[in-house]
Amino acid sequence: MKALIARLYPICRSITGPGVRETLGILREQIPLEIREVPSGTPVFDWVVPEEWVIRDAFVKDPSGARVIDFRAHNLSVVNYSRPFRGRLTLEELRPHLHAEEAHPDWIPYRTSYYQEAWGFCLPWNRLRAMGPGPYEVEIDAEVKPGSLTYGECLVPGESDEEVLVSAHTCHPSLANDNLSGIAVAVELIRGLMARKPRLSYRFLFIPGTIGSITWLALNEARLSRIRAGLVAVNLGDPGIMHYKKSRRGDAAVDRAAAHVLGARGDHRIEDFSPYGYDERQFCSPGIDLPVGCLSRTPYGRFPEYHTSADNLDLVREEALAASLETFRAIFAVLERDGVYLNLSPKGEPMLGKRGLYAALGGRSDTKDRQMAMLWVLNLSDGRHSLLDIAERAGLPFELVADVAETLQAHDLLAPAAGRVL
Amino acid sequence: MKALIARLYPICRSITGPGVRETLGILREQIPLEIREVPSGTPVFDWVVPEEWVIRDAFVKDPSGARVIDFRAHNLSVVNYSRPFRGRLTLEELRPHLHAEEAHPDWIPYRTSYYQEAWGFCLPWNRLRAMGPGPYEVEIDAEVKPGSLTYGECLVPGESDEEVLVSAHTCHPSLANDNLSGIAVAVELIRGLMARKPRLSYRFLFIPGTIGSITWLALNEARLSRIRAGLVAVNLGDPGIMHYKKSRRGDAAVDRAAAHVLGARGDHRIEDFSPYGYDERQFCSPGIDLPVGCLSRTPYGRFPEYHTSADNLDLVREEALAASLETFRAIFAVLERDGVYLNLSPKGEPMLGKRGLYAALGGRSDTKDRQMAMLWVLNLSDGRHSLLDIAERAGLPFELVADVAETLQAHDLLAPAAGRVL
Amino acid sequence: MKALIARLYPICRSITGPGVRETLGILREQIPLEIREVPSGTPVFDWVVPEEWVIRDAFVKDPSGARVIDFRAHNLSVVNYSRPFRGRLTLEELRPHLHAEEAHPDWIPYRTSYYQEAWGFCLPWNRLRAMGPGPYEVEIDAEVKPGSLTYGECLVPGESDEEVLVSAHTCHPSLANDNLSGIAVAVELIRGLMARKPRLSYRFLFIPGTIGSITWLALNEARLSRIRAGLVAVNLGDPGIMHYKKSRRGDAAVDRAAAHVLGARGDHRIEDFSPYGYDERQFCSPGIDLPVGCLSRTPYGRFPEYHTSADNLDLVREEALAASLETFRAIFAVLERDGVYLNLSPKGEPMLGKRGLYAALGGRSDTKDRQMAMLWVLNLSDGRHSLLDIAERAGLPFELVADVAETLQAHDLLAPAAGRVL
Repeated sequence: MKALIARLYPICRSITGPGVRETLGILREQIPLEIREVPSGTPVFDWVVPEEWVIRDAFVKDPSGARVIDFRAHNLSVVNYSRPFRGRLTLEELRPHLHAEEAHPDWIPYRTSYYQEAWGFCLPWNRLRAMGPGPYEVEIDAEVKPGSLTYGECLVPGESDEEVLVSAHTCHPSLANDNLSGIAVAVELIRGLMARKPRLSYRFLFIPGTIGSITWLALNEARLSRIRAGLVAVNLGDPGIMHYKKSRRGDAAVDRAAAHVLGARGDHRIEDFSPYGYDERQFCSPGIDLPVGCLSRTPYGRFPEYHTSADNLDLVREEALAASLETFRAIFAVLERDGVYLNLSPKGEPMLGKRGLYAALGGRSDTKDRQMAMLWVLNLSDGRHSLLDIAERAGLPFELVADVAETLQAHDLLAPAAGRVL
Repeated sequence: MKALIARLYPICRSITGPGVRETLGILREQIPLEIREVPSGTPVFDWVVPEEWVIRDAFVKDPSGARVIDFRAHNLSVVNYSRPFRGRLTLEELRPHLHAEEAHPDWIPYRTSYYQEAWGFCLPWNRLRAMGPGPYEVEIDAEVKPGSLTYGECLVPGESDEEVLVSAHTCHPSLANDNLSGIAVAVELIRGLMARKPRLSYRFLFIPGTIGSITWLALNEARLSRIRAGLVAVNLGDPGIMHYKKSRRGDAAVDRAAAHVLGARGDHRIEDFSPYGYDERQFCSPGIDLPVGCLSRTPYGRFPEYHTSADNLDLVREEALAASLETFRAIFAVLERDGVYLNLSPKGEPMLGKRGLYAALGGRSDTKDRQMAMLWVLNLSDGRHSLLDIAERAGLPFELVADVAETLQAHDLLAPAAGRVL
Repeated sequence: MKALIARLYPICRSITGPGVRETLGILREQIPLEIREVPSGTPVFDWVVPEEWVIRDAFVKDPSGARVIDFRAHNLSVVNYSRPFRGRLTLEELRPHLHAEEAHPDWIPYRTSYYQEAWGFCLPWNRLRAMGPGPYEVEIDAEVKPGSLTYGECLVPGESDEEVLVSAHTCHPSLANDNLSGIAVAVELIRGLMARKPRLSYRFLFIPGTIGSITWLALNEARLSRIRAGLVAVNLGDPGIMHYKKSRRGDAAVDRAAAHVLGARGDHRIEDFSPYGYDERQFCSPGIDLPVGCLSRTPYGRFPEYHTSADNLDLVREEALAASLETFRAIFAVLERDGVYLNLSPKGEPMLGKRGLYAALGGRSDTKDRQMAMLWVLNLSDGRHSLLDIAERAGLPFELVADVAETLQAHDLLAPAAGRVL
């Protein structure tokens, strides 16, 4: 995953334009990705698909001709989606177009101006302080022109057409944790799911933030009812603890699966839905209201490197990516295996001993987890409790509960209740 | 407010009689008060309107002829509603009719005997201890005779005929916090509401405790369904923290509004309903069950001066009265402005930027409260959440949430859901 | 109760056989017990009534002819339900059939092998360590043969045919707390209930664990709907604190009554249902789901003497038995007296004073519990709250609340709401 991130890192992405196309092209080398182009001007709900941004170069040269700000040195140096500009300005004239953060004086901040026509540069505070009165030669060699919004979509079909949605945003330029980490984990998930046909179908989106999810929702509205669970994948490489932000519903299957999985994995944090953050904002808007949460390590804005040049390859750790990947897989495993079952011998306990399912010698108090799991599954499989309900109630790992449910099925003591998969 | 309290303080009120009439007459100088007289003997639910109590004088003279207990010196000196008596008694004979509290040896306690025919005196413990064996000349120059129960009512009509009830009891003699403070705050609330027509109608009652509320309820039963919220106003001048005692329902609009307002105002206490206290006992009896809570500073019986001569003008502070008044007004403001709205652009977020409602420059994490309030209102305005629900969920002040709801309405992004006002 | 336990202690009981019959015969001397015999081979749900176990003698003799293990010295010495065996074995050959616990080297553990054909001995760890290489003369003079499963049943009829079930297991040999204590308390409860006809009917079962409750349930399935509450009675003589394990429903009348009673009795513990423990496992299986909890002092497996020879007469204290008995009676008292009532004067408070139910002298703040109980009962008797609900809400003892409800009924202020008793 780290290698993919390193390869994608230098590309200057935005919500539209060649950087996104190049990125998706690289992903398509690894997974069967469908790349979609939605023409500028297409109305999508309350929005319109924007024009395409092409950036070729951008710089601020000091009186000696040296590039004191240089897009080629770091693509965060230009305000993303800056309109073209050329001129000769004093520092005083240039200053309103310069963005720097005193709190992190050596880092370049990340700024965007998609929907307001503006131009600007970002630079370290220390470099700004060192700039003389000028005049400066300023150029942004960019274009905003009709084209299309580009996104990628990959469906891993399962036995059921009920879908799990995973969404990663692709609009950020050289920022590694946010969100090349999400892209890399998503690619690895797809590879794993393709290895054997899952029960559920899995749909992955690689889309620009906000306008991408709004566009996808608008174009796919009729098919949204298939989505039974979803996760926005973001910030998955930093060393922070795992965070899960619940869907707007708060008690959807994915919310409960994520809480169970994180609960079994040490330090973590579960947060309630709020209407700010990543594309869960759109998936959980009131007229859409999909059961989509957000799984991350450190959430937006809570790590100092967030939206600065310090969100670079050093911030992203292979072991953090691996742990994030494993967490996604464990959540998928719960979604894959959960279900409501019926005890077929519900009057009194069935005689487990004659089936070889119960310790033969009585009188001891050291009942094992496996035996307890069996008793719990039998006791609560009344059509009103899912295996995850049972695992939570019993305080046992979901995997053990799902395993004994299989054993009990094999002995004709348990059968799936009717109803949809998820 | 303190001036009004000072003017009312010397009057000897009871549940009936001239003291109440004089009190209401003074209030009518300041507000458009309707004064009602309900004849003695009128059946009201399980009760009967009592006779009128007139007290002219009461004293206990020692052998030297000095008034050791003197109604004229303090009207708490006589047990309120004492029946007439005249006699010459030794201390031993008189003792069962004397009430004093050792715990507060310099204060006169407040005692009543409305429904049992009795007479008595109240005096400081230290004065009781100094009394010799007598004999004493004892006289209570009082009368209990057919007349009427007197109460005041003031309606401030609003756009809607849904009503907010505010009730203050008027039966206490020279006790300042309990409840001249409640009367004074109610008068000030009326003046404020009359300044501009409110959305809701506000009905204020100035009634004797227990029998007054029972009488009013019995006479107005057919109109009770208009009352959508209510507050008993009592003990509003002492220096204690604000207390809100919930209505019997526990989750009425007034309960939630009071909790939200107090929650934003520092140290306070919310208590569950209990069937003891002030007239909320009657408003919340099971056959009436109005959504009426009780707003006070220190509740009954929890300040040492309670029901003694130390509940005097010194106990009541102008700044405490002002803070109480402001709390009532803030609760009214929530009741006035709360409502359920519908997001008119519920699929994805509406594009706030093109309406000038969103910060233009992206990438920063310091999203402002106002913008968060807008996102919360949009996200939860699905017909199932009121603005107060949203404020509570978002952890934002109601006022901010109500303000942005107005802004969103002005931009045609929000509209009131159908249904009653409160 | 201790005397009964002492008399029953030496008998070698099992799930079937003469030991149970002898035990029930002794109980029948004290209470009107019906003794039932269910033939071996009778199918009961997923089980079959097992054959009868008769044990006459069992020993291990060392080369000198001394009985180093001797059933006659302690009936735990043989694995309960051991199949017959006779042979001459070295220690090495015998070892797999010997059970001892290193953790408690001087105690004999209790082991059973009802459903797997096996034989074995139990002995103190220290005695096992002292055993030489042998050879040993080994004999288990036992028989497993068609017969019947024996249990006892006693119904104390009440005014209503709604039933409270109390179940004690009778299958344990010389173990005093588990469960002769339960048997002794049950006998005492029956004697108390027979002294005056209760409102509810009480059914007591004296049954072997697991197979006994399954047999009884299978034979009485049509009558189970009469059971409105139940308690498994076990471990009632040890010095530990009281424990109540809730029924599977979790909020049944018996769960709430037990929680209220224990809550008023100092240190105790309420636990959620789990599908392991005593016969509540069967009563609370999903196809039966009776409102049956388990009342004990220390639960199974949590006292060191559990299922060893140290669970003897010394462990059981008369004062612990008495306190357990009193707790059962208090729970019965709640079940007997609880109910939903209607306030017949629900508009405002009724005038309690004219009925002599209210303190005559007003103005004091020291309202008494009895008066508060009256106000609570009047306020919440709206057809939706039982007396127990009211006691819990008011924080008052159930007994006081039930007492004032009787007083209010006597004054025609309260009447029972329609509906079933429990």
